[in-house]
Amino acid sequence: MIEYEESPLYRIMHPRSVAFWGASSNPMGMGSVQMSSLLALGFEGPVYPVHPKEREIQGLKAYASIADVPGPVDLAVLVIPTRIVPDILEQCGKAGVKGAIVTTAGFGEKGEEGKAAQQRMVEISEKYDLKLLGPNCLGAVNTAENLNTTFLQYVAPPGFIGMASQSGSFVTQMFSYLNGFGLGFSQAISVGNEAAIDLTDCIEYLGQCPETKVIALYVETIRRGAEFIKVAKEVSRIKPIVAYYVGGSEAGRNAALSHTGALAGPDELYDGIFNQCGIIRSESIAELFDICWLLGAQPLPKGDKIALLTHSGGPGASAADAADRRGLTLAQFSEKTKERLLELVPHTASIANPVDLTFDRKPQDYVETLPGILLEDHGVDSLFIYLMSPPPRIVKNFMAMFDDPEQAKAMAKQFLKSQCKSLAALPSKYGKPVVGGTFSPMSDPFMQQLQERGVVVLPSPERAVTALSAQARYAKFKEEMGEESGE
Amino acid sequence: MIEYEESPLYRIMHPRSVAFWGASSNPMGMGSVQMSSLLALGFEGPVYPVHPKEREIQGLKAYASIADVPGPVDLAVLVIPTRIVPDILEQCGKAGVKGAIVTTAGFGEKGEEGKAAQQRMVEISEKYDLKLLGPNCLGAVNTAENLNTTFLQYVAPPGFIGMASQSGSFVTQMFSYLNGFGLGFSQAISVGNEAAIDLTDCIEYLGQCPETKVIALYVETIRRGAEFIKVAKEVSRIKPIVAYYVGGSEAGRNAALSHTGALAGPDELYDGIFNQCGIIRSESIAELFDICWLLGAQPLPKGDKIALLTHSGGPGASAADAADRRGLTLAQFSEKTKERLLELVPHTASIANPVDLTFDRKPQDYVETLPGILLEDHGVDSLFIYLMSPPPRIVKNFMAMFDDPEQAKAMAKQFLKSQCKSLAALPSKYGKPVVGGTFSPMSDPFMQQLQERGVVVLPSPERAVTALSAQARYAKFKEEMGEESGE
Repeated sequence: MIEYEESPLYRIMHPRSVAFWGASSNPMGMGSVQMSSLLALGFEGPVYPVHPKEREIQGLKAYASIADVPGPVDLAVLVIPTRIVPDILEQCGKAGVKGAIVTTAGFGEKGEEGKAAQQRMVEISEKYDLKLLGPNCLGAVNTAENLNTTFLQYVAPPGFIGMASQSGSFVTQMFSYLNGFGLGFSQAISVGNEAAIDLTDCIEYLGQCPETKVIALYVETIRRGAEFIKVAKEVSRIKPIVAYYVGGSEAGRNAALSHTGALAGPDELYDGIFNQCGIIRSESIAELFDICWLLGAQPLPKGDKIALLTHSGGPGASAADAADRRGLTLAQFSEKTKERLLELVPHTASIANPVDLTFDRKPQDYVETLPGILLEDHGVDSLFIYLMSPPPRIVKNFMAMFDDPEQAKAMAKQFLKSQCKSLAALPSKYGKPVVGGTFSPMSDPFMQQLQERGVVVLPSPERAVTALSAQARYAKFKEEMGEESGE
Repeated sequence: MIEYEESPLYRIMHPRSVAFWGASSNPMGMGSVQMSSLLALGFEGPVYPVHPKEREIQGLKAYASIADVPGPVDLAVLVIPTRIVPDILEQCGKAGVKGAIVTTAGFGEKGEEGKAAQQRMVEISEKYDLKLLGPNCLGAVNTAENLNTTFLQYVAPPGFIGMASQSGSFVTQMFSYLNGFGLGFSQAISVGNEAAIDLTDCIEYLGQCPETKVIALYVETIRRGAEFIKVAKEVSRIKPIVAYYVGGSEAGRNAALSHTGALAGPDELYDGIFNQCGIIRSESIAELFDICWLLGAQPLPKGDKIALLTHSGGPGASAADAADRRGLTLAQFSEKTKERLLELVPHTASIANPVDLTFDRKPQDYVETLPGILLEDHGVDSLFIYLMSPPPRIVKNFMAMFDDPEQAKAMAKQFLKSQCKSLAALPSKYGKPVVGGTFSPMSDPFMQQLQERGVVVLPSPERAVTALSAQARYAKFKEEMGEESGE
């Protein structure tokens, strides 16, 4: 594999200076909005708007052409009418610009004329060794470099998910989506038409990115099959790759074709490719990020045996049903585990798997002692725990104990904090994954606190169990790869 | 079918007075919490706590036994130790109490002794014609009567979903879940062990409830198969029934067994029953309520041909893929439709299905004109529209136009309002279902406004399309039933 800093993407994702074509005095123009995203994230290098007529844009001095820009330009961002893109790109090449992101659409995805224009761009790119991302792409984000060339502001924290996407929306619109889970991108790349840089380049690049713990892909097609398999197989041995693929159905295939001109293939073909590479396939965007979260945050399980802990029968049964359907095995607890459980649970409880308390006798048992007993069992590889936001009566209860509303609130706060802390400690303490599932919204204060402490909690038992099953599949793939190479 | 007011449930769900066993001076006791839920919802009839020792509970006069209660008691709620339940029930029967909800567990789901005690309760119930809900049930809610006997406060608005559930959590924990979508229950019944009143009784009863537009079921088992089929078939012709069933997998079956002592059956058997009755099966609790929302809120489609409208290629492709996998057909637009679309879309857009604008030229076109063109096409039965919360730059844009921050904010507000209004008008204007899908959280102000105006918007393209496909299945069932009976 190519070295990280030698990757065609490295230059695009680590520019020391950026020039913008398409920003103007119209603040709602696409180019203007993209430039303001870059400025808003606090990009530290110089930013040069290039415009034939205007002299100042968003408080920055504007230049009539690339030839007028005073300093060297690492990255050009082009958001201009289709017909002038190749000429501007050539000017950039001549001026020694190192990389270009072309947002403009109307090329390879739009008939013969568009294809020809795209081909001209590729030739220019090669002639001048100017690395090309796009066209028809929404841009890229590198949070470690405060780089965001897309038209939506980056509102999430820096994160560990490295994404390459054949849909720009699944980069930009995920900023706020991920933020809702306390997650963020390390780097994210909208590849557009992949005239030069493609998904395979991105995987190779993200595989070596130190901030990226897990790679997320949105796939409508794979363009260089053999190369993709070679690179993905190598990368997925060191870093998990999760892919959401929509081209497997006829309607998905047709939609992909008109979206980026992609020629997709049937599910069987793509499943074959993914399996061969150890890529975990997800069935939706939500599932993609659920799985990435868990893979990036927690230790891998040693096997597929899951324990389920609940105080509510229905959610426990849902989790059990979901686990079974997704290829996990419900752990059989050891006699010792059963004895230890029996000492702590109410008489109405079930200590089969799911362990169903029926009600919460001692809240701390539920988030610490009982999970500990289950995770210490050698027959348990992972744990699902059903969580609900403590009802308002928690405060009421402390009120009854203390009489002073302020003290009661402080105690309730302390109680929540200690619950979160106990849950957060479990995965590293026992070296096994632990995922919460809830019907409370992620905006709930308890869920927010859990997120802040790094607890993986997903919005339903099914989603939690699905993430655990995907993680177990990846663990199995890694084990098999290790055996193959005699590790 | 039995008349609404003659149903055994009618008396339990419409009590003029309620007596509580189990409420005490301990505010955290289950019985205390349940009684406080009833008082918090503003139940208008008298509430009588019954307690052997205490004289006042939560500000209400307490009575030593049912014999001491001054007025007639319609409903008894029992949250007391297992061993004394049958005796108290007998006292209630003697005193002429009409119905009882038994929350106490440890009966039919707990071995031979428990089964015997449960049988005794059934005998008492029959002897005194005292209608029995439970045991091992979390209670019931009737929002039209301000009745909530469960241990969680009812925080949602009154709604149109009537629920019968073999899990109490899927009643109580859904209050805040549904509220997050602006939804609520008309009535909700936790059936527990179904010693007397069972799921079939609930379906019959909810089928006639005037506030209930759609019936939601959480099913771990069906106890009276033939009767269930007969009743459900009759009800689903006039009112849709949606069921989430977890007993189809081995793990789900085992979990159900230890939860309520239910003996579940394989998927094939239950799918057969559901299909025969026109019951729509969902694959999760989230999906259950997604489908109920749409079925209760919008006109049924005439067929399975869906149009997809998006300004983002990835979400459009996701929706197309999901539609195909869930049995919907992507509509072929008429020539006239295509011509009308072409006049309005940017040159980078695709007017195949999905209609992908690639960007939003005129926001009002997206929520009004374009949906109108698609819905007027006779080849279109339903519409999916991808929605995202307008980015903060909307306000910025109005700022650029008006200079006055207050005026800009007011204009932005007006803009959102008009977007919501246009979307909300579509289903009734065209007589076809329209569902939004988004990655924005439901707590987002735009999504909140959409909800308030009755727009069905679900948290992902897949969930939106899944609800539409379920609705189309129900429409087809109704059509077939109509043909069968020569309607």
